Amino acid sequence: MGRGYDTVSFLSDYGTADEFVGVVKSVIRTVAPASLVIDITHEVPPHDVRAGGLTLVRSAQYLAPGVILAVVDPGVGTERRAVAVEVAGGEGVFVGPDNGLLAPAVAMTGGAERAVELTNTAYHLPAPGPTFAGRDVFAPVAAHLCRGVDLFDLGEPVDPITLRPGILPLSDVEDGVVKAEVLWVDRFGNVQLNLGPDEISALGERIRVRFGQSKVRSGRLVHTYGQLRQGELGIVVDSYGLVSLAFDRMSAASELRVGPGDPVSLETSS
Amino acid sequence: MGRGYDTVSFLSDYGTADEFVGVVKSVIRTVAPASLVIDITHEVPPHDVRAGGLTLVRSAQYLAPGVILAVVDPGVGTERRAVAVEVAGGEGVFVGPDNGLLAPAVAMTGGAERAVELTNTAYHLPAPGPTFAGRDVFAPVAAHLCRGVDLFDLGEPVDPITLRPGILPLSDVEDGVVKAEVLWVDRFGNVQLNLGPDEISALGERIRVRFGQSKVRSGRLVHTYGQLRQGELGIVVDSYGLVSLAFDRMSAASELRVGPGDPVSLETSS
Amino acid sequence: MGRGYDTVSFLSDYGTADEFVGVVKSVIRTVAPASLVIDITHEVPPHDVRAGGLTLVRSAQYLAPGVILAVVDPGVGTERRAVAVEVAGGEGVFVGPDNGLLAPAVAMTGGAERAVELTNTAYHLPAPGPTFAGRDVFAPVAAHLCRGVDLFDLGEPVDPITLRPGILPLSDVEDGVVKAEVLWVDRFGNVQLNLGPDEISALGERIRVRFGQSKVRSGRLVHTYGQLRQGELGIVVDSYGLVSLAFDRMSAASELRVGPGDPVSLETSS
Repeated sequence: MGRGYDTVSFLSDYGTADEFVGVVKSVIRTVAPASLVIDITHEVPPHDVRAGGLTLVRSAQYLAPGVILAVVDPGVGTERRAVAVEVAGGEGVFVGPDNGLLAPAVAMTGGAERAVELTNTAYHLPAPGPTFAGRDVFAPVAAHLCRGVDLFDLGEPVDPITLRPGILPLSDVEDGVVKAEVLWVDRFGNVQLNLGPDEISALGERIRVRFGQSKVRSGRLVHTYGQLRQGELGIVVDSYGLVSLAFDRMSAASELRVGPGDPVSLETSS
Repeated sequence: MGRGYDTVSFLSDYGTADEFVGVVKSVIRTVAPASLVIDITHEVPPHDVRAGGLTLVRSAQYLAPGVILAVVDPGVGTERRAVAVEVAGGEGVFVGPDNGLLAPAVAMTGGAERAVELTNTAYHLPAPGPTFAGRDVFAPVAAHLCRGVDLFDLGEPVDPITLRPGILPLSDVEDGVVKAEVLWVDRFGNVQLNLGPDEISALGERIRVRFGQSKVRSGRLVHTYGQLRQGELGIVVDSYGLVSLAFDRMSAASELRVGPGDPVSLETSS
Repeated sequence: MGRGYDTVSFLSDYGTADEFVGVVKSVIRTVAPASLVIDITHEVPPHDVRAGGLTLVRSAQYLAPGVILAVVDPGVGTERRAVAVEVAGGEGVFVGPDNGLLAPAVAMTGGAERAVELTNTAYHLPAPGPTFAGRDVFAPVAAHLCRGVDLFDLGEPVDPITLRPGILPLSDVEDGVVKAEVLWVDRFGNVQLNLGPDEISALGERIRVRFGQSKVRSGRLVHTYGQLRQGELGIVVDSYGLVSLAFDRMSAASELRVGPGDPVSLETSS
């Protein structure tokens, strides 16, 4: 027997307009009535594995111990594997497609310790069609893990080394210019970059920011949005410990017209 | 006494921008603290009873045993009845307006066995105005069912035969042409038709699809989206066992410009 | 020790596209596993303290006993205080920023009885950056209240008289004309005014409504939307006991082109 869990943290690109999320939760509720599902988000852009993986890694360290169910699955019904991946001595089990979605969060929580491909159909629902793996495969598997089914009962063991890695963009420094990329734009329009504070510590307080088609703007390193004057571009270490571009009560993404994947470079303002 | 329930599955057209859903859940939590509410969806288009009924019937077989609270209620405050309808030997009780919303799901789960009109105001909240039946009538009734109040205590018995039926569009075959209608477009743009696989089994693998103002497009019957080439129209039996139109990682609804209620016909491609 | 709570009612402007709401719930679940979070809404417009406060006061009387966590916090990281405010002999504790957001609901539930500034960091999470108080301050504080930590353990007592008031617009009567303001437009386009039924009782059934740039329209006082003819403007006492402008199955806000904060005046139609 496995140890069992009472929380399923659930991320997907299902949206909330259709019944997909509710049906997944209903399946879990029916199989494991004592467990609780906590939604991380279901508004990952459809099929955007990178965005889903980044959302999951931002959340990972705050999630309650338990099952993490993550479904952004453009390859559903094809040869991509469905997997369950155990981390941290069994404190967490990630369940989802093996397409790179889980990899950054698995790494952040200590790395895969045991993994299986979900080949044991005794723990699945009978499927009228092949396209809703969240309902027919992942949800019942998550629920059975909650009930104490052992990981290795769910299918064939998989060597963790063969799990598909996530691809996170690397930053670079060239002639004093820090070359970064936009990871994420949040609801408030703050623009998170793939940079830690160390990577900009040599730039000083006044920083020149290059973005878009040769656009340049002067920014200032501050601790909180409230320190910024109206219309002043801030460079702020955000609540995840990463460098972000922000304005006070205004969307930096709209103002600068940048989005996920766009290049941004930072240098000392002389 | 009734048997009591610990799950309320909840569908509405309330959206999530206002506090309606939260207030309904708060009322249930206050009356029946041990029950849990699972959201099916609240993004049914405002007042769209047909869309709500279709969402409910797609979900019905997966819901946890318990109360199913469904509110799409353009006639609130008028003479339409508020009802509770028991199915499957008491495994489920539907609560909502008697306007056709519940009917398809009630039928799918075996048909109404007992029904009442919710006339016993002892189980309602005092209402400052007549327009929020979800909060003042349906939520407290759902909660009291959870606590074990018997259906017949909630109001006057209703002959199930008098419950308003839902209207589901019928398909038709004429000169080898299968005439269908779009039931639903999901988040990914897949277009579900009112057709089971049997109804297209004579058409073969290559199928001509007619839609819109005399538009025609060739499609291919496949098992999964991944079998489709870029830009190729697929005919796929979807995860509900119904025939759908789809592209691989692209919205069929946007590409074909069709939506719920639109006619689509299928015939052998010669 | 405090009395402890098992419900956290949660309102914010976080939206649901990012993981913010899920992470807050995960923090609460980890600290206080027996508590349940009920979402009021997270779609308060970003930084809109007035809209958030109005949503909270509309919900307040229906919430389950427990902690009310409310975060619309444009001044996060600045000198605004983070507070917890106890009402109704401890039946409820509001947790959030002291920026006027909580004030109307606190008043509606009987007024602040005890209050503290959340200065005791032993009950916070270590924060990688200063900008996500919901996760790092408010969520763990809410969870510790659930677990029975006493309000006064959370920080320095605050004199309730010093809590920042909310600003609710007042109505006025001048020469028989009732001058009001739009408080809220709901999902169905109904337009709630800052008027109780008493304030229009002298106007009779036929009411002239002035709005926008000197636009005028005749309306009729009715009990339910269903009493209205197609295209007829109704004046309806809504489900919160306030006067609203409405059409039957049509958005009054779209038809009249009014929104929150806009002036509207009502007078007898002669």
